[in-house]
Amino acid sequence: MSKGRLEAFSDAVIAIIMTIMVLELRPPEGTDLAALQPLAPVFLAYLLSFVYLAIYWVNHHHLLQATQRVTGGILWANIALLFWLSLLPFATSWIGEHRGALVPTLVYGLVLLADAISYFILQVVIVRAQGPDSQVAVALGRDLKGKASLVLYVTALVVAFVSTVVAIAIFVVVAIMWLVPDRRIERMMNATGA
Amino acid sequence: MSKGRLEAFSDAVIAIIMTIMVLELRPPEGTDLAALQPLAPVFLAYLLSFVYLAIYWVNHHHLLQATQRVTGGILWANIALLFWLSLLPFATSWIGEHRGALVPTLVYGLVLLADAISYFILQVVIVRAQGPDSQVAVALGRDLKGKASLVLYVTALVVAFVSTVVAIAIFVVVAIMWLVPDRRIERMMNATGA
Amino acid sequence: MSKGRLEAFSDAVIAIIMTIMVLELRPPEGTDLAALQPLAPVFLAYLLSFVYLAIYWVNHHHLLQATQRVTGGILWANIALLFWLSLLPFATSWIGEHRGALVPTLVYGLVLLADAISYFILQVVIVRAQGPDSQVAVALGRDLKGKASLVLYVTALVVAFVSTVVAIAIFVVVAIMWLVPDRRIERMMNATGA
Amino acid sequence: MSKGRLEAFSDAVIAIIMTIMVLELRPPEGTDLAALQPLAPVFLAYLLSFVYLAIYWVNHHHLLQATQRVTGGILWANIALLFWLSLLPFATSWIGEHRGALVPTLVYGLVLLADAISYFILQVVIVRAQGPDSQVAVALGRDLKGKASLVLYVTALVVAFVSTVVAIAIFVVVAIMWLVPDRRIERMMNATGA
Repeated sequence: MSKGRLEAFSDAVIAIIMTIMVLELRPPEGTDLAALQPLAPVFLAYLLSFVYLAIYWVNHHHLLQATQRVTGGILWANIALLFWLSLLPFATSWIGEHRGALVPTLVYGLVLLADAISYFILQVVIVRAQGPDSQVAVALGRDLKGKASLVLYVTALVVAFVSTVVAIAIFVVVAIMWLVPDRRIERMMNATGA
Repeated sequence: MSKGRLEAFSDAVIAIIMTIMVLELRPPEGTDLAALQPLAPVFLAYLLSFVYLAIYWVNHHHLLQATQRVTGGILWANIALLFWLSLLPFATSWIGEHRGALVPTLVYGLVLLADAISYFILQVVIVRAQGPDSQVAVALGRDLKGKASLVLYVTALVVAFVSTVVAIAIFVVVAIMWLVPDRRIERMMNATGA
Repeated sequence: MSKGRLEAFSDAVIAIIMTIMVLELRPPEGTDLAALQPLAPVFLAYLLSFVYLAIYWVNHHHLLQATQRVTGGILWANIALLFWLSLLPFATSWIGEHRGALVPTLVYGLVLLADAISYFILQVVIVRAQGPDSQVAVALGRDLKGKASLVLYVTALVVAFVSTVVAIAIFVVVAIMWLVPDRRIERMMNATGA
Repeated sequence: MSKGRLEAFSDAVIAIIMTIMVLELRPPEGTDLAALQPLAPVFLAYLLSFVYLAIYWVNHHHLLQATQRVTGGILWANIALLFWLSLLPFATSWIGEHRGALVPTLVYGLVLLADAISYFILQVVIVRAQGPDSQVAVALGRDLKGKASLVLYVTALVVAFVSTVVAIAIFVVVAIMWLVPDRRIERMMNATGA
């Protein structure tokens, strides 16, 4: 399996997932400002999921850039990641239409958790295939952000039973944590010539 | 016809087919766990079809990787395969909404059979264009899995008249059969430098 | 404008157009064979349009393969072609749901005619940019098929007022005309090293 | 981040946005010419947005072609652009269904303005990363068209309160302004070897 085709296929799937989410943003019946108001949570849910998918796309790119050898295991770990990412439009649409409801919030958090776990598995499979001293293993390091995300998602799932607002705030915090550029890692990547 | 563009086009079509299926997974009206329950068969049908499409994508990649020459026949056999694969979202949606119903199960099986037959034809056309001693002919060997799949699909179609549950179980078994890595073939591919 | 990116963008748009058409093939409410019957014309319309789009994709590939220089004019003629092709799902859906109705048949024929005219314009713009002695000008020759298609579309539009069945038969004939491999042209392309 | 993958991902997202808009062009219930009439504004809105997206695609291509170095800032400015472009189908659908209504016209104009601003930011981030004497900085020059577009969008938003027809006419004028080839810039690009 050539890395190029794996990247191109993943890009296509992620691009489609990002874009079909906007199909849920249906124009309202009315034409006044009040008609737009119920769309606000749908729009915010779309924005958050769009950012999450963009983060996955960027990280996925860096991960594969540091990968030399594509094995069958990497291939299927990647397909599993794409499957779980593809459930984000469903969860986004449900949470957007029922802001504050418990079960949609739990489902949204579970999908984010499944995305993170499948990404984590993909990392493990890639590192195992390239070896512990490989460039990708060094670049990932202890993967503090990845582990913190898992902890935060689980926290949000528990907190949701008390307050869905706080749970959603945690989802936003995780996204911001990934958006803030990590200079150390970038330097390390540059230093190792990635 | 350059092989690269044929691969890229097939990738795009398969990626879109995989992803638009999830549009059928519509968020329920209610917001409790009971509201999610009717979605379970839709979700499972989506999962099965997603895995099937991923298998076709992986096999298609290996097949074309071992192909040196793209002819008009290969081009159109490939387009026929994409056409039959594109019917999977329709069949998936119908079987998901009417679990256990005979005709949707038959249609799902017929689409899987048509996919398998058109893939088989694509293989024949490619082998004929590359010659019987070509790398692709050697790599495919007797294509036991491909032939077993055809037999199993036909069996499932007959069995469906007695029990749709058993028929669907057969569809799952075929998918698992393809998921299990075939070390011998991989070794052979590696040995021939694919 | 690099030719590669123009090809990749056109491929993506054509792949999406081909695949979103199948979204119109909605699973029926019922689950017996009778429930499938009203879908037959929708399915046949989808098949015909899928074949047309595949023909455009193949011809578009050959045309660009023989193109050395991409100008602004080529770029916009190509975008115009993609626009008119993008109307095919709409026309396919309408004619599929109202088989035999006059206006949907006319609209379908007009979209096919607009597709053919915009493809013809793209050819003219490309030949003009490459020069009359260029490989692409020689390969196209007198473009008998292209001109015959235009005449046949116009004929079908007139005939539709008498019989929509005959008009649709003409659309099918044009598609078959393009599917039949044109050995002379292929030989000429090979001879000129395309 | 390799430039190639950034371009391919942007192409895929723009191609999908362009094509899913046509899903809003639903075939009418009736089959006479009168049934088509209400679709006219939807069709014209689709045409205008298609042209806008094509312009963004062409300009985006030229901009990246002149870019040597892709930084994290460029990456995220590009993702922001794709996000705002992805809102065009929503705005197109709303304005198409309620021609002449104030709020849909304002929303359409605001999305166009957001697209233009995010494109402007992308330009600034790219020029900053390449340096003031870089090819891209020279090619952009004073970017009169970009600045004029921003002024015209704001004008249209104000004018819309008096006449939505004039506001929409301004949106059309901006699109035509970009369609008219700018010989000077093309010459400059050619002179600098772009």
